[in-house]
Amino acid sequence: MSVSIKDLLAKIGHELVPDLASKFAINTFAKATTPRPRPYSLWSDQKGKICDYTSWPSLTDRTFSGRHLRAAEESYTAGLPEDAPYDGTGPGEHGVITGLFKRTETVTCPRSSLLFPTFAQWFTDSFLRADSADRRKNTSNHEIDLCQIYGLTEETANLLRTKSGGKLKSQMVGTEEYPDNLFDSNGEVKSEYVDLPYVKNKKYASIINSFNDAETRKKNYFATGLERGNSTVGYAAISTLFLREHNRLCDELNARNPSWNGDDERLFQTARNINIVLLLKIVVEDYINHISPIKSSIFKLDNSYAEEEEWYRTNWMAVEFDLLYRWHGLVPNTMTFGGTTLAPSEFMIKNDAMIEKGLGVILDGSSKQRAGKICLHNTPDFLLKAEHAAIKMGRDYRLRSFNEYRVQFGLDELDDYDDLTSDKELGAELKALYGDIDNLEFFIGLFAEQGDDNELFGDLMLSMVASDAFTQALTNPLLSKHVFNKDTFTKYGMKVIKNTGSLADLVERNVDNPETVKASFKF
Amino acid sequence: MSVSIKDLLAKIGHELVPDLASKFAINTFAKATTPRPRPYSLWSDQKGKICDYTSWPSLTDRTFSGRHLRAAEESYTAGLPEDAPYDGTGPGEHGVITGLFKRTETVTCPRSSLLFPTFAQWFTDSFLRADSADRRKNTSNHEIDLCQIYGLTEETANLLRTKSGGKLKSQMVGTEEYPDNLFDSNGEVKSEYVDLPYVKNKKYASIINSFNDAETRKKNYFATGLERGNSTVGYAAISTLFLREHNRLCDELNARNPSWNGDDERLFQTARNINIVLLLKIVVEDYINHISPIKSSIFKLDNSYAEEEEWYRTNWMAVEFDLLYRWHGLVPNTMTFGGTTLAPSEFMIKNDAMIEKGLGVILDGSSKQRAGKICLHNTPDFLLKAEHAAIKMGRDYRLRSFNEYRVQFGLDELDDYDDLTSDKELGAELKALYGDIDNLEFFIGLFAEQGDDNELFGDLMLSMVASDAFTQALTNPLLSKHVFNKDTFTKYGMKVIKNTGSLADLVERNVDNPETVKASFKF
Repeated sequence: MSVSIKDLLAKIGHELVPDLASKFAINTFAKATTPRPRPYSLWSDQKGKICDYTSWPSLTDRTFSGRHLRAAEESYTAGLPEDAPYDGTGPGEHGVITGLFKRTETVTCPRSSLLFPTFAQWFTDSFLRADSADRRKNTSNHEIDLCQIYGLTEETANLLRTKSGGKLKSQMVGTEEYPDNLFDSNGEVKSEYVDLPYVKNKKYASIINSFNDAETRKKNYFATGLERGNSTVGYAAISTLFLREHNRLCDELNARNPSWNGDDERLFQTARNINIVLLLKIVVEDYINHISPIKSSIFKLDNSYAEEEEWYRTNWMAVEFDLLYRWHGLVPNTMTFGGTTLAPSEFMIKNDAMIEKGLGVILDGSSKQRAGKICLHNTPDFLLKAEHAAIKMGRDYRLRSFNEYRVQFGLDELDDYDDLTSDKELGAELKALYGDIDNLEFFIGLFAEQGDDNELFGDLMLSMVASDAFTQALTNPLLSKHVFNKDTFTKYGMKVIKNTGSLADLVERNVDNPETVKASFKF
Repeated sequence: MSVSIKDLLAKIGHELVPDLASKFAINTFAKATTPRPRPYSLWSDQKGKICDYTSWPSLTDRTFSGRHLRAAEESYTAGLPEDAPYDGTGPGEHGVITGLFKRTETVTCPRSSLLFPTFAQWFTDSFLRADSADRRKNTSNHEIDLCQIYGLTEETANLLRTKSGGKLKSQMVGTEEYPDNLFDSNGEVKSEYVDLPYVKNKKYASIINSFNDAETRKKNYFATGLERGNSTVGYAAISTLFLREHNRLCDELNARNPSWNGDDERLFQTARNINIVLLLKIVVEDYINHISPIKSSIFKLDNSYAEEEEWYRTNWMAVEFDLLYRWHGLVPNTMTFGGTTLAPSEFMIKNDAMIEKGLGVILDGSSKQRAGKICLHNTPDFLLKAEHAAIKMGRDYRLRSFNEYRVQFGLDELDDYDDLTSDKELGAELKALYGDIDNLEFFIGLFAEQGDDNELFGDLMLSMVASDAFTQALTNPLLSKHVFNKDTFTKYGMKVIKNTGSLADLVERNVDNPETVKASFKF
């Protein structure tokens, strides 16, 4: 590509009327690579060997993660600079490549608030779901389905529902509504939640019990749809916001549809359908417009054309999408809410700050704090272990080189490290490790590449995240022309969808004193 | 539609060059109804009530069968003529509506051989898989995947594989290759097959043990991919033919690809991929051309345009597709192979005739025997119970009327029974039961409607079967432009695919003395 993506988007935004500009920009990204179905996946043969040929399971079995490009020759990954050992016990004790991520001093993001990475983690946690027991596999529905609050199955949803008026179980703390507590006052999982999948498989236990003060943390630990529903107080805040919207929608639908006779199931299903589309609107019109390198909000959730496009295909989350989304550099070392600064151990697996200060203070505090920058040498210590695991995944599954992925996404091959980054020191560091830039591995190149000062990341990251996001968000069945209508959402639901374009809109409807609460991905 | 489908197809075939005619004809059927995703399915609420509103599971959970049209008002099905009771114990003891199907004298098909219903049953058994434990659900992969010989999962495939040279387990009887026996010489399931799903859930046992001479039947009972793999000797014959082709392909691929070093997995996966596409070619170019009401073979398996069409959507087998395919009228009361005439108890769950006479004799005998006609009053006694179950499904799941389905598929509403059938007696019989033709239920109307003398069935059946078939066969991932190539199939595989267009082509390669064996859907 001879012009940068930023310049291309600016040109599209300048020359076309808004609807056309959005369509054209989205199609530019969506068509950057070959559409699904893709011939290969992380499916491997009986001996556990990753297969670099087409097979029926690689075409159909979505319990294995997909992949954009065929596995590299084994000689390629064998020739990569050594990274092991890494024992994960603390800073400094990591491999050479993992060390490229280590933050010494925080590099700040030119324009994002902490709300941006908070939302990004919460959002991607619902569909990028590598299986910890077998990293080739995933536990994803491959859909944007708000499983953070509804769970991955109807069975889980049923455990989280009141079964009355369509609502989700919740608790009131003063005037504030939160998800229900998972534990009773004795620190035991409430009997109504023992069948939640993450309770049954003990995943919640291994997380919370890693803290010495596990018993104290259990007091404000929420029952949610996913095993990581309490991972940070910000994550729990976003779930709380969507839970409040769900229960609010139920009341509104119930009042407006007397012929439903308060049918719990219909109220639940209709509110969930609306809520999922609200999320899609916020993702495209608020979140992705923030990611976009140009200032004007070019992207709109428009369901008028996607079904005509060749990229409108069954979703399948790819390993590359999972890896590229490890935006750990965005995470600050501490988080401040309402004047109180919290260390990781205080904002992880601990919702006390929200219970004490209210949902608004967490969202407002997140919006008024600057995020870090997505780049090398900027990962906080407590996330270095995750970088190590990501590097290992890229090698175990024989991902192709950074330059090969650039070509696949319609970008020029880079000739030298100078094209990758203006940071001479970083370029020299990478060159010393990898030699020719053709040897630079995908995961490292993605995070090394830099855009303009004001951009969040380089062109390959932007192309890949946009391509996978658009081709898997706009394929949501609720957006289909034959589904997106009053029959599905009711007239009221259509209006709520139309009038929602940002997280701030949800805050306006669901947070106490909304005029005092900022909710912005932009710092 | 003011012209009949037959006239329309004839016009297309006459005026367009072959490739265009095929594309145009296929698109005419594929576009006759709104494309998937469809808002409704057989998913029902917590109380088991079929939902007539859009829900997330009705849009995504394919373990429930799909449906083309929203559930009818309860008053509609409640007003239908009574059918119960039916105790299934024998002829004559059936409900009024089931009685409409009862054969007194066989009406013969104008142009089909027994090979046609044999193949139809074998073929549809792989994707129309209503769950006997809960008829709302299905056990289908929703793909044409040759699960008849490979099973529905890789776990099943692994039990059926030799793990050497890519081959499926088989046995030789003289020069004839057959699937392996499920039972050992003591009548016990061989230990290597105890984990087959239908062995584990005892489904095979309930079928075979319904015969007094179960122990004798076990001698030639095959281990196959599906629980109904031995349902008739003809069914087992088609599986045998595709099994032979699989193992033949393995030998050819192995000889032609020395660099694979005899890799069992690669040989298996590649042979399977080729074999699935061979089936797709035979389905479109042999089987569907036989179903087509015009004489010339208009339909071709052409993968050049499907991905551009709005009907290219994730497969989802619908309850209507399942019901319309109950072509029991095709089945004769007895079957004759090599001069021996068999009653149902001799051709069902009994492969002895094939073991004694060879695969060729079964295929040849099937091709030289006339099938019955698809119409009311033509179902053999032993299948009346299945008709009763089908009628019950249509009512339990509140399918809409015959005329409503006609409109949905772009056909005119019928005004009277004279439009439905030229058989005055049948028309009067239906009118006495249903009154206004708008009350005629879907399942009955489908089988009552007649085309011209030479046609297999009426226009709604033709439209619906073609629409569901094309939009779920041409979406097979192996036909995708980015998958259908030498990388997937090898150069040899591409050539085999190109040179196969009929079941007779498979016979030519896999049956002893093929020149003596007829293999034709046409009588």
